Amino acid sequence: MSAKDLDISVSYEQLEDLEEDFEDVELELLRQQAKLSKDLYAKREKIVAQIPNFWPLVFEQSPPEIDEYIQPTDSALLMGALKSLSVERFELPEGDPRSLAITFEFSENDHFENTKLEKKFWWRESKDGWAGLVSEPVDIKWKSADKDLTGGALALVKQIYEDDKAGKAQEETESKKKLRELLENTGIGGASFFSFFGFRGRYVTAEESREATKASQEKRKARKEGKEVEVKEDEDEDEEDDDDEYELEIFPTADDLAVCIAEDLWPGAIKYFIQAQEQDALSDMDFESDDDEEMEEADNGDEKPPQKKRKA
Amino acid sequence: MSAKDLDISVSYEQLEDLEEDFEDVELELLRQQAKLSKDLYAKREKIVAQIPNFWPLVFEQSPPEIDEYIQPTDSALLMGALKSLSVERFELPEGDPRSLAITFEFSENDHFENTKLEKKFWWRESKDGWAGLVSEPVDIKWKSADKDLTGGALALVKQIYEDDKAGKAQEETESKKKLRELLENTGIGGASFFSFFGFRGRYVTAEESREATKASQEKRKARKEGKEVEVKEDEDEDEEDDDDEYELEIFPTADDLAVCIAEDLWPGAIKYFIQAQEQDALSDMDFESDDDEEMEEADNGDEKPPQKKRKA
Repeated sequence: MSAKDLDISVSYEQLEDLEEDFEDVELELLRQQAKLSKDLYAKREKIVAQIPNFWPLVFEQSPPEIDEYIQPTDSALLMGALKSLSVERFELPEGDPRSLAITFEFSENDHFENTKLEKKFWWRESKDGWAGLVSEPVDIKWKSADKDLTGGALALVKQIYEDDKAGKAQEETESKKKLRELLENTGIGGASFFSFFGFRGRYVTAEESREATKASQEKRKARKEGKEVEVKEDEDEDEEDDDDEYELEIFPTADDLAVCIAEDLWPGAIKYFIQAQEQDALSDMDFESDDDEEMEEADNGDEKPPQKKRKA
Repeated sequence: MSAKDLDISVSYEQLEDLEEDFEDVELELLRQQAKLSKDLYAKREKIVAQIPNFWPLVFEQSPPEIDEYIQPTDSALLMGALKSLSVERFELPEGDPRSLAITFEFSENDHFENTKLEKKFWWRESKDGWAGLVSEPVDIKWKSADKDLTGGALALVKQIYEDDKAGKAQEETESKKKLRELLENTGIGGASFFSFFGFRGRYVTAEESREATKASQEKRKARKEGKEVEVKEDEDEDEEDDDDEYELEIFPTADDLAVCIAEDLWPGAIKYFIQAQEQDALSDMDFESDDDEEMEEADNGDEKPPQKKRKA
């Protein structure tokens, strides 16, 4: 698109360059945030480790963007066995602050052997201009087929990923066939939260990403210096072809969910925990007594955290 | 509340102190953000001033949290006369980064004489532990009574505010009576966006706020040093009494709306403007032609900003 599109002297490129400058500020703030809150998160970890069921209660209060993915069976497993959660911006301090790792720790449970499940997301840019989070499938060692909350999907995704890496990307393998059938028989609302670990996202290697970032930064610099920058005509078309979602993705919005866990559930954990305590107190009240004072306190608690009400 | 409430060795006070430490980090980040993006906002202002209807188009695309308050008559006025919008964290660099001023500039229009309307919100803390944004009513010089989109409410709010300051806070004045009648006859969904300018919030003076902040910081410091800190028994009760919403508030959620404008619409203005352009292109397409290429481009445009797709 060019200045002509807006019928004025401002071009889309100018607006986009400005947006990129704002994004640089946001990246710098993410870096600062990680630095400034590192010790506090370590302190929080120690404190909450002393509170039974802290993380299960936090998940129980999670906002709709997260809660909608937690099926009743997932919830039972999380409530019974989730020991801890942690989020790390693992490419910092040098790398991209948008790359993130989410680690779940579990106690002994009926469903799987793993005591720790880590899901990593890398921020990548592709040559056609796309940018976003990509990942690798993480397998779960289910205790038996009927304990597998993903109904075998996770293992198939992992197998397909390995096959693809071994050069069978274009081949219709047995695993692909099976997964396709499985996906056809699972309603979108019915997939387990644990399918999250199967997310792949677009296939963009670290090298492609480095080159793409370098190329786009050079173009941006050239534009800032007032040079004419050639816009490759095929860029938009490429984008459209490649941007189709990977058809065998078992949890297509796992990248958004990861960001929501990292930017909402993780920083807001204490807030959600206190909410859970208050709801608990409130529902106890319903049965215990009709003592006015107690009721009042509970009503109060339902609306705001103890002592301090913060807005904004 | 005490450690006993949690049946463990962690007290609510510990969790709250930790939350305050996290909040200090957020405040520092707000300060950094203001500093790092100041020049960019100045640059953006110059660029978008060249684009006809930039701000009206941004408002047209505003998220539901803002859009729900814009009535059709408000929208017509904004589309025809909004020249610019700006947000300033006016207490920076020394003061609280949560205090904010929103300024709307208007061209000549049928409804009011003002060319500029500024609404300021101060972050205040009260002695009973409440904290939030407070404001003062801003009057609008409507051209005539039937052009007044608030049906006279804004003028009454302003009058009541002046009366209250002159010592008539406990008095049932004529203005209060009239405003109460007016509020009873207006459905919540029916109030004009311009009622926003009438918001008062809790009455907390700068002096009370300074003292309250000082007192709570001292307590927090004492707790950190391991001293026993007396919890005033009446704190919670006070809070409950005082926290009742001011009954003559004509736009009770104006503080939330202000934060949404400051944290979403204002930083995201270019994104919303591009969205508006794309929708426009798309609806033109519907009527113009069935040329495949053009349709493709428009479909493409509907989903993502030109050239670059960003997630997270």
